[in-house]
Amino acid sequence: MDKAYILSLIENALDTLVPESTMPYKALFSAARYSLLGGGKRIRPLLLIATVASLNGDINRAITSACALEMVHTYSMIHDDLPCMDDDDFRRNKPTLHKAFPEAHAVLAGDFLLTHAFLAIASDALLDDETKVKLISILARNSGSEGMIAGQIMDIEAENQTPTIHNIEMIHKYKTGQLITAAVTMGCVIANGTDTEMQLLCHYGDAIGLAFQITDDVLDVTNSQQKHGKSISSDAVNNKTTYATLLGIDVARAKAHALIESAKDALHRLERPSPLLQEIADSIRNRNH
Amino acid sequence: MDKAYILSLIENALDTLVPESTMPYKALFSAARYSLLGGGKRIRPLLLIATVASLNGDINRAITSACALEMVHTYSMIHDDLPCMDDDDFRRNKPTLHKAFPEAHAVLAGDFLLTHAFLAIASDALLDDETKVKLISILARNSGSEGMIAGQIMDIEAENQTPTIHNIEMIHKYKTGQLITAAVTMGCVIANGTDTEMQLLCHYGDAIGLAFQITDDVLDVTNSQQKHGKSISSDAVNNKTTYATLLGIDVARAKAHALIESAKDALHRLERPSPLLQEIADSIRNRNH
Repeated sequence: MDKAYILSLIENALDTLVPESTMPYKALFSAARYSLLGGGKRIRPLLLIATVASLNGDINRAITSACALEMVHTYSMIHDDLPCMDDDDFRRNKPTLHKAFPEAHAVLAGDFLLTHAFLAIASDALLDDETKVKLISILARNSGSEGMIAGQIMDIEAENQTPTIHNIEMIHKYKTGQLITAAVTMGCVIANGTDTEMQLLCHYGDAIGLAFQITDDVLDVTNSQQKHGKSISSDAVNNKTTYATLLGIDVARAKAHALIESAKDALHRLERPSPLLQEIADSIRNRNH
Repeated sequence: MDKAYILSLIENALDTLVPESTMPYKALFSAARYSLLGGGKRIRPLLLIATVASLNGDINRAITSACALEMVHTYSMIHDDLPCMDDDDFRRNKPTLHKAFPEAHAVLAGDFLLTHAFLAIASDALLDDETKVKLISILARNSGSEGMIAGQIMDIEAENQTPTIHNIEMIHKYKTGQLITAAVTMGCVIANGTDTEMQLLCHYGDAIGLAFQITDDVLDVTNSQQKHGKSISSDAVNNKTTYATLLGIDVARAKAHALIESAKDALHRLERPSPLLQEIADSIRNRNH
């Protein structure tokens, strides 16, 4: 299963699920598409589809759910960038949504993408109702109060404090990790994975999720605005303690490396080889933007 | 079926579905509960449960969905009150959420309530998966780009213009009406209503939804801050054309009256009498806050 091919499936499906629209909703769809289709690594949808492929499932049944996951990720970025949150002006090398559109449109486009994610899964003609309900539950739980939003609140409350490494790991686990874990869990549900497969893939998801965030912390310190595609070191501006500022860049990099090895160990214990999941793990370790 | 009894069921269920929480999520739940449990007329959940009762359905199967609908309504109020949207300081006779908590908490509490609404329906042990998927679809569609959020975008884009009565009705239909219609439609699904019942109840829902918004426009002009429970005439401050400012208060009142009569006509064509749905219609016509 070729990564470039899967990425093209994702881009086409996103374009179809959130199409250009005519009046009177034109502004809403334009704003949503500005952020949703504006590039991005597509890590989460790629992971979901790669998980289904690794379990020999039908990837056609995974595409809409993968896009729903990307909609949820995109909405969280839009709201996270708002002036009252991280107040970021750039993302993916272009102005954030509230800089390119009125701020109200950014709030509403975020709300729309979150809502539309659940509608997309509920409307997926290739899935039975039992599967849809499971997927909606995972997506809501891992992006809500037991996942991403809880992590965002913890993150805000930790600002201007000096959290411990344990606090930072908890924030990462919730704010970023739970949605990455959702990708593999949803993939397991779509492909009817066994309990053992679910456990191994969840370990893989948890490990690469934390590694992803640690490398993000490292990049936030080391990279230029141009390379990273968002304002340089907004964490530093916000006086935020991160893995990289607390332990130093070398220790943080070593930790990310160990997590990626652990994730790949879990993959090796699956029955079928999963070169794409391995490639994704390696790409997180090696990423420079 | 007694209105006060149903209201107590709703309050208890909301309190259970969004409970007091301990750290680390405490601030998220506190903020959500501040708005969700802070009073309110509970029109939408009441309508949903009254619809199920009118069709002789089991109201126990309706309570969680009714609360989910109220969560979606509450999130929309929280985001609508934000400085970049309507910039309202008071609602339900107390400071709006972004005045009582940091603005970031208001954004996230809104996001949480929207997410949690879908989780609540997906987790409802009294409903089968087919019903859950139908309910989630209606809620997402009517609160999203084919409903409430579309109406909010239209509303924003209409500011500082002079819209026609047709434009204003469209905005009302989407911004407010679609979620009220969702209440009766979801009720029909839970009670397995016939197509004819669905049509009659949708007509009822559409009519009282528009009447509700027209009386809101009238109250926005006529009432004091104390009675109405939110900042006086934020529409006037925002230079917004409404039913009441365009046609005058008397014509607007007459229109609301005619809509309520039409809604009650639809009820009379149902097989069973539905005193509570009639009472809700009358309460919209007679409301003074």
